[in-house]
Amino acid sequence: MKILVIGATGTIGKAVYESLKKEYTTVYGAHRNSSSYPVDITDKNSIRELLEKLPKLDAIINAAGTASWKPLYDLTEEDYYIGIKSKLMGQVNLVNIAKEYLNDNGSITLTTGILAEHYEPGAVALSLVNGALHSFVNAASNELERNIRLNVVAPGAIAGDFPEDKKFAGYFPIPIDDAIAMYQKSLTENNTGQILKKY
Amino acid sequence: MKILVIGATGTIGKAVYESLKKEYTTVYGAHRNSSSYPVDITDKNSIRELLEKLPKLDAIINAAGTASWKPLYDLTEEDYYIGIKSKLMGQVNLVNIAKEYLNDNGSITLTTGILAEHYEPGAVALSLVNGALHSFVNAASNELERNIRLNVVAPGAIAGDFPEDKKFAGYFPIPIDDAIAMYQKSLTENNTGQILKKY
Repeated sequence: MKILVIGATGTIGKAVYESLKKEYTTVYGAHRNSSSYPVDITDKNSIRELLEKLPKLDAIINAAGTASWKPLYDLTEEDYYIGIKSKLMGQVNLVNIAKEYLNDNGSITLTTGILAEHYEPGAVALSLVNGALHSFVNAASNELERNIRLNVVAPGAIAGDFPEDKKFAGYFPIPIDDAIAMYQKSLTENNTGQILKKY
Repeated sequence: MKILVIGATGTIGKAVYESLKKEYTTVYGAHRNSSSYPVDITDKNSIRELLEKLPKLDAIINAAGTASWKPLYDLTEEDYYIGIKSKLMGQVNLVNIAKEYLNDNGSITLTTGILAEHYEPGAVALSLVNGALHSFVNAASNELERNIRLNVVAPGAIAGDFPEDKKFAGYFPIPIDDAIAMYQKSLTENNTGQILKKY
């Protein structure tokens, strides 16, 4: 199985990449500043260039994407578009391009988080993006051809990255291994259109 | 109570406007081609011009906004942005501007629909927009000041507008009166952050 992990230097992406490398022989780790596999998910051409460079893949996992953290009264329209162009449309464009480059029965796994359904101060723009992606995955998974699967992993805050005794969006952080287990589930089970949550 | 209904010529907006006019003395009906109260929700300046022209309001109901209907494999990035700029950010911008023009304890009611959580062929871009708005309302309602309330009405297809014996996104259409009742609920009850669904 040939797997690509995008965002392989972030808290989640790095852990997923390293975990998968132990199990599978061919795991590519892409990120913005990589010399071997650079990619900027806000740029369609960059996504396409990366996938042109790699052999046909069986799975793509994305853990890249950002959005603006600001209180509602400080958020400008431009602030919302940071998340719309990066975490939202970056992942939507990835799905649209990836479906051409995946082998039959391949899988795509996106990343959102707890903010789609739980409130955290100053995170309205992230909530919007995560909610959009959940509905997108639920719908788009029905129209993917060649048995290509599409799921999204929605973790709470990650322990280590976040104080373990502090709540985020009303929930204590989860161990990184619980997040990794959701990506494994999306990768290896015959599921699609799933929003895999762990808070 | 002074109420503004935006999108007052659409199937839902017109019915809500006419229903409210029977109960309240001051109901403004705005829409794109109105000579008295023109507004284009994709344009922040147009929203602000409308609200500058009106007295301070107690409630704003929006039923305007569009998105692209196309199968997943035909949707371009530009197609997604039709809905993002209109139904999604049009309503987000409306909230951000409206919060300055509403009286204390005022309310804002947005409109989404069943596609946020149920699949209909060719409606992926609408699903994305509706899901984004649900998470936005859930989050943003916590940060609105002066006791301004924010809810969203999510109806199924409307009977009359849609064949009554045909399912849309897996559900038969609902009577328009059921949709109106949800806007009334948002208008008159002391609720906020609610996603009022009727499928």
